[in-house]
Amino acid sequence: MPAIRLRPWVSGSNFRKDRRMERHPTKSDFPVSEVRRYLEPGPIVLVSSRLRDKTNIMTLGWHTVLEFSPSLVGLMISSGNHSFRMIRETGACVINLPTTKLTDTVVAVGNTSGAAIDKFAEFGLTSVEGSMVEAPLIQECHASFECRLHDDALVERYNFFIFEVVKARVAKTPKHPETLHYTGDGVFMVSGKIISRRSQFRPEML
Amino acid sequence: MPAIRLRPWVSGSNFRKDRRMERHPTKSDFPVSEVRRYLEPGPIVLVSSRLRDKTNIMTLGWHTVLEFSPSLVGLMISSGNHSFRMIRETGACVINLPTTKLTDTVVAVGNTSGAAIDKFAEFGLTSVEGSMVEAPLIQECHASFECRLHDDALVERYNFFIFEVVKARVAKTPKHPETLHYTGDGVFMVSGKIISRRSQFRPEML
Repeated sequence: MPAIRLRPWVSGSNFRKDRRMERHPTKSDFPVSEVRRYLEPGPIVLVSSRLRDKTNIMTLGWHTVLEFSPSLVGLMISSGNHSFRMIRETGACVINLPTTKLTDTVVAVGNTSGAAIDKFAEFGLTSVEGSMVEAPLIQECHASFECRLHDDALVERYNFFIFEVVKARVAKTPKHPETLHYTGDGVFMVSGKIISRRSQFRPEML
Repeated sequence: MPAIRLRPWVSGSNFRKDRRMERHPTKSDFPVSEVRRYLEPGPIVLVSSRLRDKTNIMTLGWHTVLEFSPSLVGLMISSGNHSFRMIRETGACVINLPTTKLTDTVVAVGNTSGAAIDKFAEFGLTSVEGSMVEAPLIQECHASFECRLHDDALVERYNFFIFEVVKARVAKTPKHPETLHYTGDGVFMVSGKIISRRSQFRPEML
């Protein structure tokens, strides 16, 4: 048994059972210029990649929106991750948005290495071919954003990749899914409750 | 009356009344290597700055943690903001963390320009001298992180500043304050509820 499988929850059979109980959210195309709607709140995301016949998934909380159009996002992908080389070599990834339903999957993905296991298989996740990039989408997630490398100027110094979101698919419901926001130390904050202050905004600031 | 004062809530007297009703959180020093605890969840923040005798505050949702030590954070500060030049020229700012108690202040700060008003005075906010940088802290916020410019390599191309957090002050309670996470369109998600999965983490991944 690989050293990383320290916990009973890292068990393929449990995850496959969970998966059968969940319906996959039905997704529609979504404007790439509006992905800030899902990423600006700062959720933990699952980043999927493919290099030749191998896929991988990592959890990631260090990301920011950078521009509406082109739709640019910055991701800090530590070079210690197995995904780093796959994404560096292909210049492609998919940013997937998990909801709280996938909390245990998020934790399991973040505590295992793609060098040792096939995370799609191990955790009962369904990979869907990307339409614009080679990397796979994760069907069980609320949204998936296909990304192509836009600028690697800060990859050497900070492991900071700037991607362009070239295709977005989002579930229509729920409108405001509960998302996970990582604080470190094994603790997530949950977002979902909404406050609207729309009437207090100047129209050009919305 | 300046054109930006479109709404009755942008009124100094209202904000001053609110302020008298709030006790300022008592803050303590906090390790700069652990600011991810507050920033990784992706809250909207108030960024304060000073250029000579003028101070300013802007709301900002496009930021990411980049490194634990040195404590690096990346901020996308659009060059259209009055704060841009102040921060560009001084290489300093303070990232302040507002809680939901300050929702109306966050909205008001984001819908006004420091070119026209003194936001500290207008919104009844208390400025506290920074101990490591020239920029002022906002007393009413839950946490304040004093930042010094670390790398401006991407400022020209993306308005993306990399700062080092050189001093952190955080309120001891509440441990998990309700924070605001902006989605665009005048709508914030609220984080505050906690899920702990600490027991499922490998120790080195915490």
